[in-house]
Amino acid sequence: MAEDEDKILTVSGDDTAAEDEGTALLGLQDEDIGRILEALDEDDSVRLEALFSELGTYDKADLLEKVRADARKKLLDEHSRFFEPEVFTYLQEEVRRRILEDMDPAQIAGIISELDSDDALDLILPLEEDFKHEVIRKLSAKTRLVLQEGLSFPEESAGRLMQREFVAVPQFWTVGKTIDYLRAAADDLPDNFYDLIVIDPSYHIAGEIPLHRLVRARRSEKIEALTLDDTHPIPATMDQEEVAEIFRNEDLASAPVVDEDGRLIGIITYDDVIDVIDEEASEDMLKLGGIEEDDLYRSILPTSYSRFRWLFINLFTAFMAAGVISLFQVTIEKVVALAVLMPIVAGMGGNAGTQTLTVAVRALATKELSSTNAWRVIGKESAVGLVNGILFAILVGVAAGFWFHQLDLGAVIAVAMITNLVIAGFFGACVPIVLDRYDIDPAIASAVFLTTMTDCIGFLTFLGLASMFLV
Amino acid sequence: MAEDEDKILTVSGDDTAAEDEGTALLGLQDEDIGRILEALDEDDSVRLEALFSELGTYDKADLLEKVRADARKKLLDEHSRFFEPEVFTYLQEEVRRRILEDMDPAQIAGIISELDSDDALDLILPLEEDFKHEVIRKLSAKTRLVLQEGLSFPEESAGRLMQREFVAVPQFWTVGKTIDYLRAAADDLPDNFYDLIVIDPSYHIAGEIPLHRLVRARRSEKIEALTLDDTHPIPATMDQEEVAEIFRNEDLASAPVVDEDGRLIGIITYDDVIDVIDEEASEDMLKLGGIEEDDLYRSILPTSYSRFRWLFINLFTAFMAAGVISLFQVTIEKVVALAVLMPIVAGMGGNAGTQTLTVAVRALATKELSSTNAWRVIGKESAVGLVNGILFAILVGVAAGFWFHQLDLGAVIAVAMITNLVIAGFFGACVPIVLDRYDIDPAIASAVFLTTMTDCIGFLTFLGLASMFLV
Repeated sequence: MAEDEDKILTVSGDDTAAEDEGTALLGLQDEDIGRILEALDEDDSVRLEALFSELGTYDKADLLEKVRADARKKLLDEHSRFFEPEVFTYLQEEVRRRILEDMDPAQIAGIISELDSDDALDLILPLEEDFKHEVIRKLSAKTRLVLQEGLSFPEESAGRLMQREFVAVPQFWTVGKTIDYLRAAADDLPDNFYDLIVIDPSYHIAGEIPLHRLVRARRSEKIEALTLDDTHPIPATMDQEEVAEIFRNEDLASAPVVDEDGRLIGIITYDDVIDVIDEEASEDMLKLGGIEEDDLYRSILPTSYSRFRWLFINLFTAFMAAGVISLFQVTIEKVVALAVLMPIVAGMGGNAGTQTLTVAVRALATKELSSTNAWRVIGKESAVGLVNGILFAILVGVAAGFWFHQLDLGAVIAVAMITNLVIAGFFGACVPIVLDRYDIDPAIASAVFLTTMTDCIGFLTFLGLASMFLV
Repeated sequence: MAEDEDKILTVSGDDTAAEDEGTALLGLQDEDIGRILEALDEDDSVRLEALFSELGTYDKADLLEKVRADARKKLLDEHSRFFEPEVFTYLQEEVRRRILEDMDPAQIAGIISELDSDDALDLILPLEEDFKHEVIRKLSAKTRLVLQEGLSFPEESAGRLMQREFVAVPQFWTVGKTIDYLRAAADDLPDNFYDLIVIDPSYHIAGEIPLHRLVRARRSEKIEALTLDDTHPIPATMDQEEVAEIFRNEDLASAPVVDEDGRLIGIITYDDVIDVIDEEASEDMLKLGGIEEDDLYRSILPTSYSRFRWLFINLFTAFMAAGVISLFQVTIEKVVALAVLMPIVAGMGGNAGTQTLTVAVRALATKELSSTNAWRVIGKESAVGLVNGILFAILVGVAAGFWFHQLDLGAVIAVAMITNLVIAGFFGACVPIVLDRYDIDPAIASAVFLTTMTDCIGFLTFLGLASMFLV
């Protein structure tokens, strides 16, 4: 123990340096939060100061998200000096909205004026309309204009993602002049940039020069000669998912955004795109699970309300399945074993269908599934359903036959199992493909259709066959 | 119609330029694939040439993935000139393995020698052991060494992601000397780089200088003074998921990778990290749906086999649920309405549980859920279960009461519904948290535990209460 502690204290030791880095790299740990909350409780400003000095911007946002509302309020009220403007841009939307709505508009305007235009937009977007306009009124005319322009673009569009700060140079300059210009303008340049945008006199994009290309070019070289002209000017109205696809496919660090007339109005950088990718992946996953919007930080009643809708739709399908069963009440009364076994048929169909559905929804999202291979995928999934259907028919048929000492019951459940697993494979692939073709989000709508199908058909074949052959 | 076609042909027109870009940006469309397959069928080399000239590297990979095996073979055999080495790095693993195993080792070695070290590693990893070693034998000694070192790092580690090509400069240089060096070494530098790594004489990392910082500094400035020393040297053994987290949290474009002694051995760039983020998000989503590995491109039997395991485990839980039902056969014989209604109770529990589970699994993956807020989340989810449990108890209770003209049946299903939805909320949050604590992947294992719980408890409360109060 003592040795371990020594190690952590010895920051200069050569051997332990890497390990220490390793720990520091892992971000905010629960133990760190515990220490901060303790110091906060004891109003120990000196210790808080020391603890906060260890935290990065992202960690501070993480802290505000995870602590209870009262601790969060105390941190922000009494120790606002620890939270630089960028912290608020990292907050999850729900938490951000709650924190900002506790502040006064002038304070928020102060924060916004220190942010890049894309982050500023993120910050005010989740606010209530009235409050948002109050904040906007407190901004300087210039910031206000930029924000209002940003708000004019559709939600989840390139225009909302872009920042207006970029470095553009005219075609006719040389490398030398460009570098001199960058040196002279050093303090006015954006904090981060990866490419120079090369523009013609009418502010149209002639191409791009990645910085690594600039730094290895000779001073006398012409910008025009250095320009890569296979740029990807992104229309401001393009959907963010498409933007992410372009960045991913082309390995871009940044891309210029243009207005309807093809004029340069901003740039999007890879870090915005990483956020989009995270967001879209989360969304699809949550939707498949019946969650329309991430509600981790939402309180009980709004969460219940947002989940109610999905459960309510599912209730309908459950009643449809119950309706199918009710057709066979007489049969069940005679052979009660059917009631025992019927959830197995429906459940296995549901599970196999979900497997197929998940693969199909993900492949549609990543564009790996399209009309070129749609029929091939549907065919394959049906065949997989048939193969596993036969295997499980044997397993379940034998088990059921022995359990209830009734071989024909085993045969009936075996046939029902094969039918339902083929159906599950076929519709598990078809349903999302068809929904996608009609521009309905397959992630949210597919599961209900599919469960209805596998439940109803599962009960129908099993109980139907039973009523024909067992009674 | 004619007007539309005109527009697409007028590439020089100012108005349509942006639109054309827009279409070109969208990547490979099904129509493009159709045209290529047509030209391939007709062996129309001129047209193929024209069509391929429109495609980017990524599009070509996409094409190879989507077409049938015979067309793919023909493309690669007769038109290999269209497929530059980078195309193969973009292929989905399964397709890549199949394509490479049709080539001869020398041909693959030729492709590998033209790739960056990280891409080369990706290329040979999915190959069979024997074939892999045959390929490695055909490589130049230098490439072989680099690849073998890469293979020595654990799977999904930073060492596997990194490229060995980077730009490092000593602390004591000036900006002027650095830029002169970059100009002189222009052709030997990596294709892409975003940061200079600053090293001390022992090859330890002193810090980093992003290129945008270099280009705005004066020639006389010392590299040492310009260096940002809050770098994030990443140990080569770090898991790729952690690497992605660091990049995301710190908005890094690139980060140096170090060996156990803290010496610089490579760098990881944001584009590798985007791939990791995509991969991890896909993985979690697929696992939640019961898919252990992406099998879109796998053939029927291997796919059936990989899905069988999951379905087999689920079969056990289905039989457990059936076992619970079988305890109440006498009750069901007397009140057959129970058989009709029991899937509703279990199904609603399953759906509500899946909602909670999905939120919890995603929050664990993004580290938004940890021991600091675990109990709060469990408490909230149970409360949400209670709220929706009460609402659905009323709905289902009334519906069932009227359907079977039996009010006490409605009361029984209402109580069972509340119980099961609270259980679903509680365990939907608990199960993934507990699994995660014991280092079991919550994405793959949670659903089985949860369904067992909601099915068994759903049937038990509903049928148990019925046997007490209805018979």
